[in-house]
Amino acid sequence: MLVQELIARKRDGHELTRDELRPFLEAYGAGEVPDYQMSAFLMAVLLKGLSDDELGTLTGTIIASGKRLDFSADGGPPAVDKHSTGGVGDKVSLVLAPLLAAYGLRVPMMSGRGLGHTGGTVDKLESIPGFRTDLDLNEFQDVLSNVGCAMIRQTPEIAPLDGRLYALRDVTATVPSVPLIAASIISKKVAEGIQALVLDVKYGSGAFMPDGAGAVHLAETLVSLASSEGLQATAVLTAMEQPLGATVGNALEVREALDCLRGGGPSDLREVTLALCSEAVRAVEAGSSEADVRARLESLLDGGQALERFATLVSAQGGDAGIVDDATRLPAAPFVKPWLSPATGFVTAVDARTVGVTAVGLGAGRRHIEDDVDPAVGLELSARVGDEVEEGQPLAFVHARSDEAATAAAELLDRAYTVGPEREEDTPPLIWKKVVAT
Amino acid sequence: MLVQELIARKRDGHELTRDELRPFLEAYGAGEVPDYQMSAFLMAVLLKGLSDDELGTLTGTIIASGKRLDFSADGGPPAVDKHSTGGVGDKVSLVLAPLLAAYGLRVPMMSGRGLGHTGGTVDKLESIPGFRTDLDLNEFQDVLSNVGCAMIRQTPEIAPLDGRLYALRDVTATVPSVPLIAASIISKKVAEGIQALVLDVKYGSGAFMPDGAGAVHLAETLVSLASSEGLQATAVLTAMEQPLGATVGNALEVREALDCLRGGGPSDLREVTLALCSEAVRAVEAGSSEADVRARLESLLDGGQALERFATLVSAQGGDAGIVDDATRLPAAPFVKPWLSPATGFVTAVDARTVGVTAVGLGAGRRHIEDDVDPAVGLELSARVGDEVEEGQPLAFVHARSDEAATAAAELLDRAYTVGPEREEDTPPLIWKKVVAT
Repeated sequence: MLVQELIARKRDGHELTRDELRPFLEAYGAGEVPDYQMSAFLMAVLLKGLSDDELGTLTGTIIASGKRLDFSADGGPPAVDKHSTGGVGDKVSLVLAPLLAAYGLRVPMMSGRGLGHTGGTVDKLESIPGFRTDLDLNEFQDVLSNVGCAMIRQTPEIAPLDGRLYALRDVTATVPSVPLIAASIISKKVAEGIQALVLDVKYGSGAFMPDGAGAVHLAETLVSLASSEGLQATAVLTAMEQPLGATVGNALEVREALDCLRGGGPSDLREVTLALCSEAVRAVEAGSSEADVRARLESLLDGGQALERFATLVSAQGGDAGIVDDATRLPAAPFVKPWLSPATGFVTAVDARTVGVTAVGLGAGRRHIEDDVDPAVGLELSARVGDEVEEGQPLAFVHARSDEAATAAAELLDRAYTVGPEREEDTPPLIWKKVVAT
Repeated sequence: MLVQELIARKRDGHELTRDELRPFLEAYGAGEVPDYQMSAFLMAVLLKGLSDDELGTLTGTIIASGKRLDFSADGGPPAVDKHSTGGVGDKVSLVLAPLLAAYGLRVPMMSGRGLGHTGGTVDKLESIPGFRTDLDLNEFQDVLSNVGCAMIRQTPEIAPLDGRLYALRDVTATVPSVPLIAASIISKKVAEGIQALVLDVKYGSGAFMPDGAGAVHLAETLVSLASSEGLQATAVLTAMEQPLGATVGNALEVREALDCLRGGGPSDLREVTLALCSEAVRAVEAGSSEADVRARLESLLDGGQALERFATLVSAQGGDAGIVDDATRLPAAPFVKPWLSPATGFVTAVDARTVGVTAVGLGAGRRHIEDDVDPAVGLELSARVGDEVEEGQPLAFVHARSDEAATAAAELLDRAYTVGPEREEDTPPLIWKKVVAT
């Protein structure tokens, strides 16, 4: 079949067979189908969707385009991982990976960089002096067996077809497609060689999928696809109406993750981390009780074992483990400016998307995929939705590279915070619901 | 605005302003926007449509991408042209252009090549030994002023952006979009410098737009766009259920056009030609009666003036005008094989699309844009829908380059012809309806 005939069939809403779709995708991977045909196809997919079978074929072809690890058969502990659909202030991975390793599982984690208003785990890790996220697969597996977790950026050895498709989607307005997102996420996690995957699907204004029904649909698609690819998969829908925790920005978030690893930190960060870790453990420990698992996870945070594991990880990947005891060794911004409450009353909203955009404006994130990030800059939020505040009280601190940048950020924060006379009663639940394979 | 943001707005069904759309199209024309972004945009347009304003901007930008002729202000006769949406056996242009020139109008006609199951005027003209369709614009205007008509292929000087967009659409399954088709057709006709345009919009199984409602919508879009660009425009919806006339294939169709120019030929070819010519004349001769115009057009066919004008045109464009008196000077195929009626009864269908595909299989047309055509091969159809036929009577003659090709074509014809026991009463009208500007 000619490529244009195949595109026409998707354009007209027909289902492509595996024997049609797979050779087309492989030919693209081999450079035999030009970008201009693939981008027309991707737009047709975005607007017409993919069937479950088509989605399976796409995912399988992406997996087969590179190496596929397998930690299920070497006699070691179960290998698990987490994926978040992206949030503002989401530093959960930095706590979850060492915590699950301290629990006795293995966490071979490959993460992305931040783009747009959401941050990325790789950028946060790279704010630690010396920390290398560019390990090759041998180094990655060495760190994993020595530490119990390893945290690197996407490598071109795993699912290279996803990298090519994502770069094309990024410039052709074909990113926000549920099946394309699902194939991209799940293919990489399957190729990582894990047995269980827990998905943190955000909902609310700061999420990729703001409305609850859309987020549930995304969660169901991800869990169903992961299950059909042989992973134990669970999704937890968590709120992203206001940022998670009290910091947004790379080094600031590492500092907050350290607090959480020490048994402290903001309660929402601890709650989401414990919920996701509990699901990951119970996916590979059949019959364990939720209460028991949670108690053990809490004791690993409160007893310092998770923090110790994080320090070991930082050392193993070339970073300065001294940050664990002395957070001032992390990069810090030269200008710190308070943002004051415009009124007395209650904080009724801290819009996560606006906070994320403010952080990007400071240099903490990327507008374009090729931008550099500034590890030091960001925001500390000292008031959350529901807090009673007084006019003139600092609700946030802007960490900036210059006084001008701090002033510009403060102006954006005027739009993020809402202070009203009455406490907002109807806030979305932090941990809303769970989606499991059917 | 970033190109991907502009694509996203169209993807989401929003209208783009002139100030957004025009610079994007111009940047594509200048090579600054890559094909992979344009093809994603074109797929979004195909699936989401264009508003009237967007369509006007697209059309205007294509016109402005090249030279724009203007025959309205030089004191010469009104300049008119015809466009057909494409049919099987459609040789109307070969009769219409010299007939309207003989009438006293000017016809500066630029035509396309055939693609898929439909033929193209340029291929038919090029079956005349020596005939040049590649005149430059100066030669084109000289022939026009000397003969009253000129017939050439698309030149890159006129609407070059259309050529680039069409080549991309052809390989990305983005051809069948009513607004994209309309912009492509009307931009070229406006840039040709004419005052009036008559559109032959085909409906029926052999047409690009088989169903009547779709064909009416296409006709309305074309007429409305042409009017908004300052053309006097009328569309005539004509049947393309069975082929037009009795021949399909380039030299065979020239021969039939000569019969028509001589006052003979199949009645459907004559009827469609007269209907379209009548509309073209009345668009530029305000107040003339349909009966008077038609009578004069008929006398120009029956009196030989149109044929004489065609001979002059052929000479002026380097062709052998001897074909007019001796059609054996046209290329002829070495193998001619009859196709016999499988039954006694009435012909109830001669499927135009299947006949077109059969002719392409013989080499008379193109599967791909880069294919060559064989001027000699094709089909003569000796029975039409409604004819009473006997088993074993020849219903068609295959003109082929080889005996094998003739046999293969005959097998395809088995699917084109249907012979039943009763005459089909419910045939679509040859000239169905007229669409004028509102």
